[in-house]
Amino acid sequence: MPTPEAEVLSVNEAFYAAFSRRDIEAMEALWSTRLEIACVHPGWDALVGRREVLHSWRAILGSPEAPEVECTAAVAHVIGEVAYVVCNEVLPGAELCATNVFVREAGNWRLVHHHAGPVASRMEEPQRKAPAKVLN
Amino acid sequence: MPTPEAEVLSVNEAFYAAFSRRDIEAMEALWSTRLEIACVHPGWDALVGRREVLHSWRAILGSPEAPEVECTAAVAHVIGEVAYVVCNEVLPGAELCATNVFVREAGNWRLVHHHAGPVASRMEEPQRKAPAKVLN
Repeated sequence: MPTPEAEVLSVNEAFYAAFSRRDIEAMEALWSTRLEIACVHPGWDALVGRREVLHSWRAILGSPEAPEVECTAAVAHVIGEVAYVVCNEVLPGAELCATNVFVREAGNWRLVHHHAGPVASRMEEPQRKAPAKVLN
Repeated sequence: MPTPEAEVLSVNEAFYAAFSRRDIEAMEALWSTRLEIACVHPGWDALVGRREVLHSWRAILGSPEAPEVECTAAVAHVIGEVAYVVCNEVLPGAELCATNVFVREAGNWRLVHHHAGPVASRMEEPQRKAPAKVLN
């Protein structure tokens, strides 16, 4: 039997596989149908609600410019029927850090929230004093 | 009786109040003591574990350069004993978007994860094609 953490990481991988394959159907199937969902694409305000979130994914995955994304350093934190994964997203020429929140629905982990933002080395000016800088 | 959403938003406000007042004690009291915690400061890799996360907050709040942060547009999503808030963080000259994950411990909502990243207007180059751009 896989642990809940392994189950969640597997669904997290499926999310990035759907992204990289630009597979809109697989992407839609990964999101919760029972709960309100939310999404923060890098650099943009939050989207709330199934219609708005899936609309954004259809637009992103339908674009010929959609990048391939590799997920690395994923760590799953399971709290009962809810879980979140923190991972890095490696794109051509860029690296992001993401938080993905999942809920277990009828035995399957489904996404309820995705938030991705850039890692400092790719940013012009970090906006908050970062720990490593404060400490060094 | 406040709704769970109102309770979570109140603790989310307390988080930003502790940040703005540079109140390290209040900040530490807001984080879960029972679960592993995680934190993604803007532009930086994820920190995992109480020691590392609270060390980063002590460094940030102990710095005279720590900015005041105003939380706006907060929306709480409650899933049983777990909740997440998506909100904007308005700093002097910058705006971030944040995801904060909470868990109910002995009746009190406590932070288990904080992830903040910049909003596009402050970034040099958005790394992923953003929905608004794809759609326009």
